[in-house]
Amino acid sequence: MLGVCYYPEHWPEAWWAEDARRMRALGISYVRIGEFAWSRLEPKRGAYDFAWLERAMDTLAGAGLKIVLGTPTATPPKWLMDEYPDIAPVDEQGRVRGFGSRRHYTFSSESWWRESRSIVEAIATHFGEHPGLVGWQTDNEYGCHDTVLSWGPEDLKAFRKWLRRHYQTTDQLNEAWGNVFWSMEVQSFDEVSLPILAVTETNPAARLDFWRFKSEEVNAYDRMQCDIIRRFSPGRWVTHNFMGFFNEFDHWQLGRHLDLASWDSYPIGFVERFPFSEQERGRWAETSHPDIAPFHHDLYRGVGQDRFWVMEQQPGPVNWASWNPVPKPGMVRLWTWEAFAHGAEVVSYFRWRQAPFGQEQNHAGLNLPGLHELSQGGREAEAVSTELQVVGPLGAASRAQVAIVYDYQASWVTRIQPQGRDFCYHELVFRWYEAARRLGLDIDFVAPGASLQGYGLVLVPSMPIVSDAATEAFAKASGILLFGPRTGSRTSSFAIPDNLPPGPLADLTGTRTIEASSLRPNVRHRVSGAVSGHAIRWRDHLEAKGEIIARFDDGLPALVSNGRSFLLACWPDGELTQSVLSAVATSAALDTCSLPDHVRLRRRDGLTFAFNYGGVEWICPDGVEILVGDRVLCSQQLAIWRSPAPH
Amino acid sequence: MLGVCYYPEHWPEAWWAEDARRMRALGISYVRIGEFAWSRLEPKRGAYDFAWLERAMDTLAGAGLKIVLGTPTATPPKWLMDEYPDIAPVDEQGRVRGFGSRRHYTFSSESWWRESRSIVEAIATHFGEHPGLVGWQTDNEYGCHDTVLSWGPEDLKAFRKWLRRHYQTTDQLNEAWGNVFWSMEVQSFDEVSLPILAVTETNPAARLDFWRFKSEEVNAYDRMQCDIIRRFSPGRWVTHNFMGFFNEFDHWQLGRHLDLASWDSYPIGFVERFPFSEQERGRWAETSHPDIAPFHHDLYRGVGQDRFWVMEQQPGPVNWASWNPVPKPGMVRLWTWEAFAHGAEVVSYFRWRQAPFGQEQNHAGLNLPGLHELSQGGREAEAVSTELQVVGPLGAASRAQVAIVYDYQASWVTRIQPQGRDFCYHELVFRWYEAARRLGLDIDFVAPGASLQGYGLVLVPSMPIVSDAATEAFAKASGILLFGPRTGSRTSSFAIPDNLPPGPLADLTGTRTIEASSLRPNVRHRVSGAVSGHAIRWRDHLEAKGEIIARFDDGLPALVSNGRSFLLACWPDGELTQSVLSAVATSAALDTCSLPDHVRLRRRDGLTFAFNYGGVEWICPDGVEILVGDRVLCSQQLAIWRSPAPH
Amino acid sequence: MLGVCYYPEHWPEAWWAEDARRMRALGISYVRIGEFAWSRLEPKRGAYDFAWLERAMDTLAGAGLKIVLGTPTATPPKWLMDEYPDIAPVDEQGRVRGFGSRRHYTFSSESWWRESRSIVEAIATHFGEHPGLVGWQTDNEYGCHDTVLSWGPEDLKAFRKWLRRHYQTTDQLNEAWGNVFWSMEVQSFDEVSLPILAVTETNPAARLDFWRFKSEEVNAYDRMQCDIIRRFSPGRWVTHNFMGFFNEFDHWQLGRHLDLASWDSYPIGFVERFPFSEQERGRWAETSHPDIAPFHHDLYRGVGQDRFWVMEQQPGPVNWASWNPVPKPGMVRLWTWEAFAHGAEVVSYFRWRQAPFGQEQNHAGLNLPGLHELSQGGREAEAVSTELQVVGPLGAASRAQVAIVYDYQASWVTRIQPQGRDFCYHELVFRWYEAARRLGLDIDFVAPGASLQGYGLVLVPSMPIVSDAATEAFAKASGILLFGPRTGSRTSSFAIPDNLPPGPLADLTGTRTIEASSLRPNVRHRVSGAVSGHAIRWRDHLEAKGEIIARFDDGLPALVSNGRSFLLACWPDGELTQSVLSAVATSAALDTCSLPDHVRLRRRDGLTFAFNYGGVEWICPDGVEILVGDRVLCSQQLAIWRSPAPH
Ligand SMILES: [Zn+2]
Ligand SMILES: [Zn+2]
Ligand SMILES: [Zn+2]
Repeated sequence: MLGVCYYPEHWPEAWWAEDARRMRALGISYVRIGEFAWSRLEPKRGAYDFAWLERAMDTLAGAGLKIVLGTPTATPPKWLMDEYPDIAPVDEQGRVRGFGSRRHYTFSSESWWRESRSIVEAIATHFGEHPGLVGWQTDNEYGCHDTVLSWGPEDLKAFRKWLRRHYQTTDQLNEAWGNVFWSMEVQSFDEVSLPILAVTETNPAARLDFWRFKSEEVNAYDRMQCDIIRRFSPGRWVTHNFMGFFNEFDHWQLGRHLDLASWDSYPIGFVERFPFSEQERGRWAETSHPDIAPFHHDLYRGVGQDRFWVMEQQPGPVNWASWNPVPKPGMVRLWTWEAFAHGAEVVSYFRWRQAPFGQEQNHAGLNLPGLHELSQGGREAEAVSTELQVVGPLGAASRAQVAIVYDYQASWVTRIQPQGRDFCYHELVFRWYEAARRLGLDIDFVAPGASLQGYGLVLVPSMPIVSDAATEAFAKASGILLFGPRTGSRTSSFAIPDNLPPGPLADLTGTRTIEASSLRPNVRHRVSGAVSGHAIRWRDHLEAKGEIIARFDDGLPALVSNGRSFLLACWPDGELTQSVLSAVATSAALDTCSLPDHVRLRRRDGLTFAFNYGGVEWICPDGVEILVGDRVLCSQQLAIWRSPAPH
Repeated sequence: MLGVCYYPEHWPEAWWAEDARRMRALGISYVRIGEFAWSRLEPKRGAYDFAWLERAMDTLAGAGLKIVLGTPTATPPKWLMDEYPDIAPVDEQGRVRGFGSRRHYTFSSESWWRESRSIVEAIATHFGEHPGLVGWQTDNEYGCHDTVLSWGPEDLKAFRKWLRRHYQTTDQLNEAWGNVFWSMEVQSFDEVSLPILAVTETNPAARLDFWRFKSEEVNAYDRMQCDIIRRFSPGRWVTHNFMGFFNEFDHWQLGRHLDLASWDSYPIGFVERFPFSEQERGRWAETSHPDIAPFHHDLYRGVGQDRFWVMEQQPGPVNWASWNPVPKPGMVRLWTWEAFAHGAEVVSYFRWRQAPFGQEQNHAGLNLPGLHELSQGGREAEAVSTELQVVGPLGAASRAQVAIVYDYQASWVTRIQPQGRDFCYHELVFRWYEAARRLGLDIDFVAPGASLQGYGLVLVPSMPIVSDAATEAFAKASGILLFGPRTGSRTSSFAIPDNLPPGPLADLTGTRTIEASSLRPNVRHRVSGAVSGHAIRWRDHLEAKGEIIARFDDGLPALVSNGRSFLLACWPDGELTQSVLSAVATSAALDTCSLPDHVRLRRRDGLTFAFNYGGVEWICPDGVEILVGDRVLCSQQLAIWRSPAPH
Repeated sequence: MLGVCYYPEHWPEAWWAEDARRMRALGISYVRIGEFAWSRLEPKRGAYDFAWLERAMDTLAGAGLKIVLGTPTATPPKWLMDEYPDIAPVDEQGRVRGFGSRRHYTFSSESWWRESRSIVEAIATHFGEHPGLVGWQTDNEYGCHDTVLSWGPEDLKAFRKWLRRHYQTTDQLNEAWGNVFWSMEVQSFDEVSLPILAVTETNPAARLDFWRFKSEEVNAYDRMQCDIIRRFSPGRWVTHNFMGFFNEFDHWQLGRHLDLASWDSYPIGFVERFPFSEQERGRWAETSHPDIAPFHHDLYRGVGQDRFWVMEQQPGPVNWASWNPVPKPGMVRLWTWEAFAHGAEVVSYFRWRQAPFGQEQNHAGLNLPGLHELSQGGREAEAVSTELQVVGPLGAASRAQVAIVYDYQASWVTRIQPQGRDFCYHELVFRWYEAARRLGLDIDFVAPGASLQGYGLVLVPSMPIVSDAATEAFAKASGILLFGPRTGSRTSSFAIPDNLPPGPLADLTGTRTIEASSLRPNVRHRVSGAVSGHAIRWRDHLEAKGEIIARFDDGLPALVSNGRSFLLACWPDGELTQSVLSAVATSAALDTCSLPDHVRLRRRDGLTFAFNYGGVEWICPDGVEILVGDRVLCSQQLAIWRSPAPH
């Protein structure tokens, strides 16, 4: 099903009915509204004006649209910021981050919690049982623009409280953090300072705890909004719209109390954000890289416990990347279908009509700026709508044979202490994902510690802190396990394990890491044996009890197998990644193929989807019944066929 | 005529007479003094000491030199800064920019206006009718070191006042800025904050207004100084010394109340500042690029309404660029002649003698540091002086056949919202200027909205906001018009026009832009047809009613002609720029030639000047009477001949 | 002799005896302790707890180890920082640099001096006569993490006091600094501000004085600690552990009141810090560049007046560089021997055991993290210990034939006013050192103004300010002198000398510099004649009375000889550096050879040491008696032989 994001407050009331009619004509079923409208809903303290929004909802619902309502907490109005200056976040340089854009609040402000409760209650009470309303979105893109962490007095106060709760005594805190190092011991929780703006790096254990504390705050804040909504708006689901390549809080945790996950898919904008090479950025500038959107579809399908939406789908050029090209013709249609292939329930475009004013006036919509006239993206959405009727309703995505364990804490640990400047957790995960999909495999993402049963192959690109639950899940897994560098290298207190890495996985993997090497960009170490390629960026120096199936030139183990477990002792370059993934897939007896860099496959509900991101054409397999597209799959085209067997 | 900048306060009084004598001996007619001497003119509050400067002026005038006196407001002394801390500007990070260098004031400080009036009045009263005094310079290089914008409490106060005057009500402000976007609406002008230090980008409309407000402040401040000077110093002209590649306030506006424009020409220093490629920077490191100084001569001739000086001419290496090479022998002479070729009345070297102390001790002068001994630059100035007598007095520069419309607001708009990281307005203008000069053309710069009549060809590299006056000027122009990318893409309130870009130029150009694409450095789109090359950086996707004379590979229009108007829908690479300029010059029936990258021509008053920036020699045309130089024009040499016909 | 850094406070008391026993078993004689233990020695104001440290010292001494005790002032505890917030330093952006790491104090805080005296006295009194104690280390790595300069109110107060003492009157200050330039004159010392956070660059003379003031503060602070220690701990020596590639205070000055110098040798970490090319960084990533450690051994042997230790020797990967590779096998042994070859008395590894917690948990030790088990570095230290017995006691290093004058002030002057962005003083010195060592020469470093007698060749890579003492030392030197660019270009007040550069060396060198050129990376000027290569980065344009033995292509002098003196008028590229060094060594009649880039020689006490940093093997000379190693010197290997003659 298709949806769209709409801002009635941006347009003359006289346009609303025509907009609604044209949405339906295009084949749109859902409309998201309201998430930035606080200054119109409460222009002054307590002076609520809900009438306009109610009229808008009546109009939309009257046209047959189902409404998703956003809470407006991403944009507290100026009168509120002036009243409670302690709401504003503080950046890493100690500067207050003021009014004038959005997300100008810290999750630690008590005033903010009180004011948030108040506006969410007011809105949930008023609109909660509106007949057109089917679901809610809390706030908007938590953490966007670096807003999870904040470094002001409110944050310090809340952090001390959190530490007091977690450690009870400063002795336990000093012990856990290793504060004896450099005389960092405190005698009272009131002596604790924020782990920032020191002369040189602060204690990594303190920084990790600060991050956990902030992640828990985000979760609690969202939970607070959900609780209010559920109290006043029975029978409606609640979601939040997550972002891409974003790790600053634990999304698994939020996912547990949401009814479904959603995310904002800007495949081209992300090409500039992810650490691709310049050459790759040029290659994929106008189509996006073929794994960017799929990676997140699969991740958020996991976070949403099998239910997810694309809440915002890029419909043309955006405004916020360093460069913002117009997508090649066909890409908006392709991205939309790709979301469905990966299990999306709804793909909702951002936005109905390009705004001719404000910060995002260069962000395309389904309609041209200020006009009742479809854009190129609008016409492609229209095409999808027609094709959706051809294909018919899609069942749920079935469990994949491959699982990747995605660990937000791993991102924090490696950012806090990279040790080599280019060790980026989500880059590593993405590269393993890419290699697995080049083998034609479907992939699920799984939370650390969650059950791994039923997966033929489990990938753990890196997991510095291995919890008891994770240890147990690995032990119980029935499939092949592949662990990557730095796994098990830290305790939950950010210390090196007593038995050295991989700590609790020593027996499972049959290894012990005695030292680690970070390699600058022009240094690489050859790996040869059952797999081949080079180590770049990172190497663990291992002692192995398991079987050494590939070695470095100096004879040390590169890939060690021990029963079901494989441990790769480095960050692999492209060649080695592909070689290792191929080897473990073979060990797991998975059925693989070899796709070119611009083609990907995905199965859902008995259908196979093929996507060509462009370059040269690709030929679909013989003997399949093609529902959409042609057997000769041209650039920027897709094909859908009924799968005879698992591909 | 030649001039020089002189600092009597830097040297023993006993040297003044000898310096004056040697200036005259060198052929110098004008001497600029006084612009940094506040601490000597008023060592303590109200304790003026004008006697020394009067003796210096008497000495200089006595030797036959004409004096240009600067107001000393670029360097308020420490006692004043301590008395009124609100004078100090505040940077974009919120840090006070303190005492210790120069330009440490914000144009918004009321204390500063009062103190400025007071010192300018005192000086104008005392020296205004000095017989040696012929003209004034206000302040020094407004905006140097990023001092147009300032972000402190004084600035906010003045900005709110400005907004109140412009918008009367917050409803009108909210409407004009589109504040409904992201709940940015204010209920009172006292709720307005500076458009900075927010969580992410602030409202572009607010930023544009802030920039206009600051530009108007600079203008009003200069106007205030001029008014005082004119009251107390009758019969003397007033100028200000502008800078190179500098766009932070509207120079056209200041030009209107000045008697003549002047600028500070540092051709080599600018090689490091302009966004040249590294290869170009290497190529021109020791000579400068052959269009840098000319570009500004032509621009400031326009700003000065046909009258301009070079107030500071680089006489050797400078101190302020990332690298500061010694110019190749001959370049100081060449640059001086080039200024005259472009219409300069006076070229004044900065400075008479290299200072052995202070921040600029590595900045060359006409004399060696602290010595009465000419430097290499001094000897070249001496050579020019002799040649000037050979050539005789030069008449005014005549109107060129080509006009470039230079729009300061275009620079602000594209910096506020670049959309592609490398969209730099003055870079685009410079590249068009370069291509036109490679065709041997002379060029005038014209203000947006000024009359374009009489020009065979009018170039508008980019003009996002097209005012009513500009629309009318284009309509009345008799020549060929060439518009570049983003033209007409914004209203004066920084919104997309109702009829989409190019807004008011839709009919004239026969086009409508439905979307725009910014292209990263390794992406380019081929253009072919009547012109050829590639689009880089930026592409407008057009619908065309006019004739499409070149297309992109995807079939969309690249160059559209519609009667006298041509619209180029992209940022052209070097090849395409040259191809398009050539095509429109042909349409305009201009007489062109093809110059190598290191040679340029310029005509003035029946003379043609040729300049060889070096590489290989160039042969001057046959049958001309060469006044200066040789027919075989060697590297770093120039030639002047009487033009039989327009070249 | 070998030593080790040990932190008893990091380990269970039960481990101490076993650790001590294993140290002795490894062949370790010295143990450094205590320098970060303040929070354990004084957990609350005045509540000293010395008992644990005394037990630790008893245990270590009981095992036969000699103890070096550090004062703990590098890490003031939190209770003290809360009590006296004025202790915290302030960075160049005006931000307080708070608690949470180390070195969080400014040398200007009076509170800090009082508290430092108090803790040093307490410790010196208590432990000063402990029988195991042989020496002291003051504080730790003065200046690490940019902590020499600080920019807060305490610093301003102390700077004003310093200026009052040095200049007596503001007239003299204004005159010395050239404050008339840009109206910077002050009427009272209380008007002086810190030379920072101004609109553009501040007065270089003020910045140089600020740096001198800070350097003197560091020296006085260290002197204060030494005085206290000597009063209470008779018969023990005092040292400080200096750093590598670090110039922010005058080390010669501290060296004069210390009994010996020591330094912290991290050969691989420094590869990322020194401005090597990316290619060189790749080449030496896992071995270090063969001159990094030797450069500092030679420098600190000079600073220590022929006595120096390596107080911290890298024993494996470290944690603080951008990338931290594991050293190639053999390198820890090689580095240790290299220190001895250059005259080190003791090489002390940092640290005994890798800490599994805190900021440096990725920093290797001689033992694996938290374990009683040698690391790879530990095993190599063990090997050295055995070899040391084979070689027997080593006498003092004898005077070399080549001296390099190393001038800290030169570093300050060129950083304050680089004029070309890549003019880095210590880079230039290092490159000359490298070229001299490629000729097989041994080198001493000498302070500016110290006697140069007895040296066959004296190298002065750059010395902008030439003091009277230095002038005299050059005049009395008996050997060949080679001066580099910018020498003599400034007076002690940071002004250009009256007679132009090289100022006081005009007669000695037979030159006068009339201008200087800084050259961007892709510009170079050819030099030919008796030496050949290219000038890069910097060129002085000279007039020469001496003999011009090489010229630039434009005919100006590149290398001028005048009796014993040679002056090189540029920053030489690699080829020219080698060519010039070779020429002057020949003039000095030194015996040279030509070593490949990866091999170096060094003599000490009748022995010659050869080191192969890797790549291809190298053959030791015939007919020598090899004590350690083989004649065929493989990668990462060393050889020691008895020298028949001076090599
Ligand atoms: Zn969004
Ligand atoms: Zn200037
Ligand atoms: Zn250290």
